[in-house]
Amino acid sequence: MIEYSGKEFHGSQYQEGVRTVQDEIEKAFAILTKTKSRLHFSGRTDTGVSASAQVAHIDLPCQHIEGLSKPQMFDLIWRLNGILPKDVAIAELVNVDKSFHARHSAREREYVYRILNKPQRSALLKDTHLLVRQPLDLQIMQDAAARLVGRHDFSAFRSTSDDISSPICTINRAELLNLREGVLEFWIAADHFVYNMVRIIVGTLIDIGLGKRGADAISQALLEPNRSLTGPTAPPWGLTLNAVRYPGFSLWSSGNN
Amino acid sequence: MIEYSGKEFHGSQYQEGVRTVQDEIEKAFAILTKTKSRLHFSGRTDTGVSASAQVAHIDLPCQHIEGLSKPQMFDLIWRLNGILPKDVAIAELVNVDKSFHARHSAREREYVYRILNKPQRSALLKDTHLLVRQPLDLQIMQDAAARLVGRHDFSAFRSTSDDISSPICTINRAELLNLREGVLEFWIAADHFVYNMVRIIVGTLIDIGLGKRGADAISQALLEPNRSLTGPTAPPWGLTLNAVRYPGFSLWSSGNN
Repeated sequence: MIEYSGKEFHGSQYQEGVRTVQDEIEKAFAILTKTKSRLHFSGRTDTGVSASAQVAHIDLPCQHIEGLSKPQMFDLIWRLNGILPKDVAIAELVNVDKSFHARHSAREREYVYRILNKPQRSALLKDTHLLVRQPLDLQIMQDAAARLVGRHDFSAFRSTSDDISSPICTINRAELLNLREGVLEFWIAADHFVYNMVRIIVGTLIDIGLGKRGADAISQALLEPNRSLTGPTAPPWGLTLNAVRYPGFSLWSSGNN
Repeated sequence: MIEYSGKEFHGSQYQEGVRTVQDEIEKAFAILTKTKSRLHFSGRTDTGVSASAQVAHIDLPCQHIEGLSKPQMFDLIWRLNGILPKDVAIAELVNVDKSFHARHSAREREYVYRILNKPQRSALLKDTHLLVRQPLDLQIMQDAAARLVGRHDFSAFRSTSDDISSPICTINRAELLNLREGVLEFWIAADHFVYNMVRIIVGTLIDIGLGKRGADAISQALLEPNRSLTGPTAPPWGLTLNAVRYPGFSLWSSGNN
């Protein structure tokens, strides 16, 4: 289980010439194991998106991981965290069966998107919350969010550059929480997400909360695969991957929910 | 009401040659009013300490602030925040009576100290929480914290460089909250604090939670003005000034409690 602050990363997946989470973790393992091993995430996160509980698997030569006692495993994480830069950390490491695949085996992903709804900017929440200065109608947003739950076609909530994954997603949770005055969290859990889906949903909900779109904008967009029916893609820094769940066992952050 | 992230500041109070919150705010007001005015805080915060709701007063030439309508006041804050660097922001600005003094009129200050009690470091909470790797006994810490409440002599909880303020403080609240697994908040409110008092209290509570000091260490230190009876001064980055309260009206953060 991996935690990272997305601010200084060009996303999770390896890309030539830029700083990525995958590259940092693969380099740390390579230093300790003296072998290059490929890391496979549960899914990619974009530039600027954080994770409190990303999951990945890595195939290591047996001697480095098999049969390690709990204190030895703890020590291995400790050494990895000593090598890794401060904005990425490994929280947990477990031995899994050969059949386990971080992406293919995952049954549910959960994200949280944080919004600050205040007229003036904040010095403390600037890196983790999207600032919306105009007052949002939370009741209308909460009602609209509830309509996401269930099995729907999310083609209208998909970035145009994504033409691979199935647009049919099952949403298990979609909830807007009002934590304290002006501090909002939108929680969403689904079997999978299409590209930029959470950020487009958030952009649409904000449009609805500001009265730019009707309360039924979500329902309409779920019926018609038309990107113009949904709002702008909300910026990445409000978004955190909070949990990835697997059949049999689950790995999730106790740190952020 | 002022919010700042303490990380890049050498504390709140003006000091020659270093970056301070006071200097940044006085410079912003000077740009808008074309006059130098002195800012007076409710109290100083040290290098690295943050505030979600610091209070200060400033004497401005009348024409800049007197009789401003609500939208005009909002616009003034907006312009100040446009000038101020990203790690400090003004949340609220109100006209006060000549008799009001941010420090002398304050009746209560409230701080929160954030602790992460996990075996491995965190990538997301590293700048706002003190990491304690060994397991803490929360029940014993909570009992010890409760003994702080009331009127006591805090000489044993005072940095040796402080010989000005009265060591007699009245604590109205002292509570250790377990927000979620491993994420702790220590809340304390008092009429006033002596120098480094909150951080020495936190250092002592952590010693107690680790079993380095007995559960009655707090009670003993309140009876005897001996700095050796208390723990180390906890580092500044876990600490945030959360509220300053005044008779008649109160200014506090709705953002962090």
